[in-house]
Amino acid sequence: MKNFNNTDTICALATGGGMSAIALIRISGYDSIKITNKIFSKNLNEKESHTVHFGNIIDNNNIIDEVIITIFHKNQSFTGEETVEISCHGSKYIQNKILELLINNGVRMANPGEYTMRAFQNRKLDLSQAESIADLIESESEAAHKTAIQHLRGGFSKKLKLLRQKLIDFASLIELELDFSEEDVEFANRDQLNNLLNELQKEISILIDSFKIGNVIKNGIPVAILGAPNVGKSTLLNVLLNEEKAIVSDIAGTTRDSIEDEIIIQGYNFRFIDTAGIRKTDDKIENLGIDRTIAHAKKSSIIIYLIDASKNIENQITNINNLNKEDIGKIIKVINKIDVVSDIKLKREDCIHISAKENSGIDKLKNKIFDFTNINALDNNNTIITNQRHYEQLKNTLSELEIVIEGLNNGLSGDLLAVNIKKSLFHLGLITGEVSTDDLLSNIFGKFCIGK
Amino acid sequence: MKNFNNTDTICALATGGGMSAIALIRISGYDSIKITNKIFSKNLNEKESHTVHFGNIIDNNNIIDEVIITIFHKNQSFTGEETVEISCHGSKYIQNKILELLINNGVRMANPGEYTMRAFQNRKLDLSQAESIADLIESESEAAHKTAIQHLRGGFSKKLKLLRQKLIDFASLIELELDFSEEDVEFANRDQLNNLLNELQKEISILIDSFKIGNVIKNGIPVAILGAPNVGKSTLLNVLLNEEKAIVSDIAGTTRDSIEDEIIIQGYNFRFIDTAGIRKTDDKIENLGIDRTIAHAKKSSIIIYLIDASKNIENQITNINNLNKEDIGKIIKVINKIDVVSDIKLKREDCIHISAKENSGIDKLKNKIFDFTNINALDNNNTIITNQRHYEQLKNTLSELEIVIEGLNNGLSGDLLAVNIKKSLFHLGLITGEVSTDDLLSNIFGKFCIGK
Repeated sequence: MKNFNNTDTICALATGGGMSAIALIRISGYDSIKITNKIFSKNLNEKESHTVHFGNIIDNNNIIDEVIITIFHKNQSFTGEETVEISCHGSKYIQNKILELLINNGVRMANPGEYTMRAFQNRKLDLSQAESIADLIESESEAAHKTAIQHLRGGFSKKLKLLRQKLIDFASLIELELDFSEEDVEFANRDQLNNLLNELQKEISILIDSFKIGNVIKNGIPVAILGAPNVGKSTLLNVLLNEEKAIVSDIAGTTRDSIEDEIIIQGYNFRFIDTAGIRKTDDKIENLGIDRTIAHAKKSSIIIYLIDASKNIENQITNINNLNKEDIGKIIKVINKIDVVSDIKLKREDCIHISAKENSGIDKLKNKIFDFTNINALDNNNTIITNQRHYEQLKNTLSELEIVIEGLNNGLSGDLLAVNIKKSLFHLGLITGEVSTDDLLSNIFGKFCIGK
Repeated sequence: MKNFNNTDTICALATGGGMSAIALIRISGYDSIKITNKIFSKNLNEKESHTVHFGNIIDNNNIIDEVIITIFHKNQSFTGEETVEISCHGSKYIQNKILELLINNGVRMANPGEYTMRAFQNRKLDLSQAESIADLIESESEAAHKTAIQHLRGGFSKKLKLLRQKLIDFASLIELELDFSEEDVEFANRDQLNNLLNELQKEISILIDSFKIGNVIKNGIPVAILGAPNVGKSTLLNVLLNEEKAIVSDIAGTTRDSIEDEIIIQGYNFRFIDTAGIRKTDDKIENLGIDRTIAHAKKSSIIIYLIDASKNIENQITNINNLNKEDIGKIIKVINKIDVVSDIKLKREDCIHISAKENSGIDKLKNKIFDFTNINALDNNNTIITNQRHYEQLKNTLSELEIVIEGLNNGLSGDLLAVNIKKSLFHLGLITGEVSTDDLLSNIFGKFCIGK
């Protein structure tokens, strides 16, 4: 397959496109150094790994740029191959020109994720670690980052390795039986087998269950802001978002394209559902009970239900009953506009009191939102599944395992049990890449960006 | 002045913001290595310059990322200071987190252009070279790139040095005279002085004149497409732009934010004036003679005047007379829609024949546009001024010089001439930074991006 041809040398921009102070071009493959030599003012042969060289990129006696080149030798590089990194000035012209020169000298443009795929194929990473690199790059909250780096560093792989070992131990006990099957000897202690299987079942179930939280960590916790027109939904959203932006811009001045409708509370990402819609429809006549509102409620894990302090509060609270029962359970009731009405009577124990306009009570609301999620995954070091594919393969592993358990309980013979044990090993192997197909790989790495 | 405090250690993202495979954070200043040690898993003390180290960025026992760190020691770095580059995964979270950690450990965020300013202040570059770095990063055409890299590599500085030396030679001849002024001795040969001044005048004038082309190289050659409604202005523009885009995306898949209304022909940048306006008004009734059209014509160096082959060609050509005389001289007459009318009669020697719709004749038109500019600066190695500030200081230098020349012709005494010689030296010095003020520096470097 052309995509999985590892004999040629590849190149791509590794840093963000567009203009910047510095850009990085990465070249990987057998001929990396040989080809770079053709366009560089110095000879890089026989330079040691992890050394840096200042010089010029040259095209036909024209100097294209003054650059810094770093060399990583085979087995000491990310891909496991000879690797060259060119750190050039971040002009689009220079970036394109250097890539063009490399291509003219026999390097080809890397496919999406091809560096990471090569790292996997050269056994620098297993498949689940390779996948975590994409997650790591995309992670925007502390929680998403923490799970991704834990996976990258092999936390999940180690866990899977242990599970796999237990399955193999189990299989070998069964196999032993098979070898002597003609003599009708039963070596494996059925209780011991049962215990091993129950242990496996329990551990895999915990991993599967962790996806509920893992998915939320990766994709954000969906929140809807509901309430009657002019209750202050947009104002509240803006206050929440602006605060966040202010924090970000404090640090860096780097995050120019911050995502508009996400905020991070205590390291977790909260995603406001269809808030563009909410903002747009804010001036229309929209009352609780409209289909759209119900749809918002349904898609969210948390509903902030805004109540106007200057209007009849009881009526507004009664309106909540228009929602589905399961959605009512997600509601945080928030009384807004307390700046307008200072009446003490509106203090209600079951509501948060805020003034979105005057930015008061917002911290209390944020704490309430966070407490509402009932997550504290960050505090312990449990392995959390965040990847849909891993989740599905773990479920497949588990269902095979359940067949084995049932078979064992029904006194099925070892050779029949072996079939499903192998299948469960197969599904586990698909996660770490011990088993893989070209289709699977191109599906996984095709979603990566070019340069990674 | 706070901005020019070089004793502290600075950090910034050097690569483009947002998500990418890799991002680069640069730290410069006396404490770079000492502070990086506090957040890195390995000890970087006593590591040699230009070496690379793989390890973890650590915050309170939490691993933030697996990174590659490059060390550049004082006098071997871009800024001339101890420098550390952290190459991390390009997640926004990680980028911000590492900057935050650095700041918490006493590094401060760099001001715009501060790395380059430090390089200037540590005499790694002169001022005109420092300025060329911003030009280099911004250059999008071969021509702009070539002049910028020539300036960066000191081509212009060298020229200025020679001019400066000649002025100083002249001054010292005059000074010598001054020393003996009481004896009324005239050492300096007036003819020799005159020759020297004329030489200087000539060379500076050539540089000043080069700005006409330098400005065009840097900012693009303005082109307007004029013609009656529905003559195919938008179609032609799109054909020109799309071709360009196709070429770019062939190479890299990197240039995602290509500029919409610029195309590059034979290495030069052509900029379509207010083409958004042209496109928007294309469906309105707009005829040649409208103020707006005349304004477009005035701002452009080249006018593509589109003629509809399917309508009365003579009438359309007559319309050209509505333009100002000087604008008529810029016109390239182009007959469009030759796909619709195959009549041989419309072949006119003074027009280019195209079909924008069928993309035919476009190459011929592009060649015509390029020939029209009458520039071939790329082919020779003349120094070309592209910077408005340099242009102005050269003009100032020249006018002081002209006062000297006039004075010399009028037999003015050496001490009077010396005043204006000094002034012209001052203006030359402002270009290379031999003379500089805080205001000048903050004006120049304030326009740089952060990280450079």
